[in-house]
Amino acid sequence: MSDGTPLPLAGPEAPLRADAVRNRALLLEAAARLAAERGAAAITMESVATAAGVGKGTVSRRFGDRHGLLQALLDHSERRFQEAFLSGPAPLGPDADAVTRLRAFGPALLRHEHAHFDLYLAAEPSPERRFTVPARQLRHRHVALLVRAALPDADADLLAHTLLASVDVVLVEHLGHPRDRALARAEAGWHDLLDRLLR
Amino acid sequence: MSDGTPLPLAGPEAPLRADAVRNRALLLEAAARLAAERGAAAITMESVATAAGVGKGTVSRRFGDRHGLLQALLDHSERRFQEAFLSGPAPLGPDADAVTRLRAFGPALLRHEHAHFDLYLAAEPSPERRFTVPARQLRHRHVALLVRAALPDADADLLAHTLLASVDVVLVEHLGHPRDRALARAEAGWHDLLDRLLR
Repeated sequence: MSDGTPLPLAGPEAPLRADAVRNRALLLEAAARLAAERGAAAITMESVATAAGVGKGTVSRRFGDRHGLLQALLDHSERRFQEAFLSGPAPLGPDADAVTRLRAFGPALLRHEHAHFDLYLAAEPSPERRFTVPARQLRHRHVALLVRAALPDADADLLAHTLLASVDVVLVEHLGHPRDRALARAEAGWHDLLDRLLR
Repeated sequence: MSDGTPLPLAGPEAPLRADAVRNRALLLEAAARLAAERGAAAITMESVATAAGVGKGTVSRRFGDRHGLLQALLDHSERRFQEAFLSGPAPLGPDADAVTRLRAFGPALLRHEHAHFDLYLAAEPSPERRFTVPARQLRHRHVALLVRAALPDADADLLAHTLLASVDVVLVEHLGHPRDRALARAEAGWHDLLDRLLR
């Protein structure tokens, strides 16, 4: 998979004028705060407008409707996560070695999805698309690269699928409530799995 | 999960008269052979009747329509697989030790699903049911029991989900064609994963 083809990022963000970019980012940050504090159900055109201190018309002009807003929020959030593991600081980013980055990836993914848990759960693809959604492919390609460096004799592509399955959002949901405990359990499982694989 | 509750089996098989039981088994074996040789698309009420040497009316009376026949075939096949790992001979069944049974389970699951690949793929549950389908729960409970015996200090329930994900039918489909190669790759991955976990 390390063939140099451009990496598939989250949905494209169309070029905007500088003030429109700032405006859009402001609205999305307000929506992200709402989602983190009160869940995706709390995100409405009105609540985001209020939180960002703008009129509802501004939110409508930018995102159309609530569905458009939620999709934009997911893309925005995924893009920030991608930047963190592709070019952010250590231990997640490229300044750390492969083993350190691999250890950091699972907890970072869990924290990232936790912040938008019900959004990711609602966006869970159907079985036939589970492995072909671009954002999923990028995560897989990244983990496979790290596995290849850390465990040169393993089937890195396959093992990367297995590792990602261990922190899958649907699995974490299945582990039950309270969600903090399910996330802590999945994080401990990630470290335990890597400890066993790497020793 | 080892709380002594009865294990969830595949769909219930209603009591039938002895000759009706033989008749039903004969039809399902014929359907299973057709599926293995020519794929699920080759299974029709007519083809099963012909293969079993009975009239089409006999197949209709037993299964209603093609959907009922396919569902019965999947339940029948899953039940045979369950019998094999719950009470069949070693290395899959209870006469072998936990590590041996665990090693044998992945390849057996892959062979079992391979024989009904398009049936299982078509029956793949939606994301919210991925972990709650009774047949899946039974597989998981079984693997978790073996993991608990083989790796007493691991989170057996969680690791069992991870192991099962590595031989998931949707993942094997994603590994591409020819399917024999994808299956061999998943089987090698199962053994490699266990080698690393158990050493």
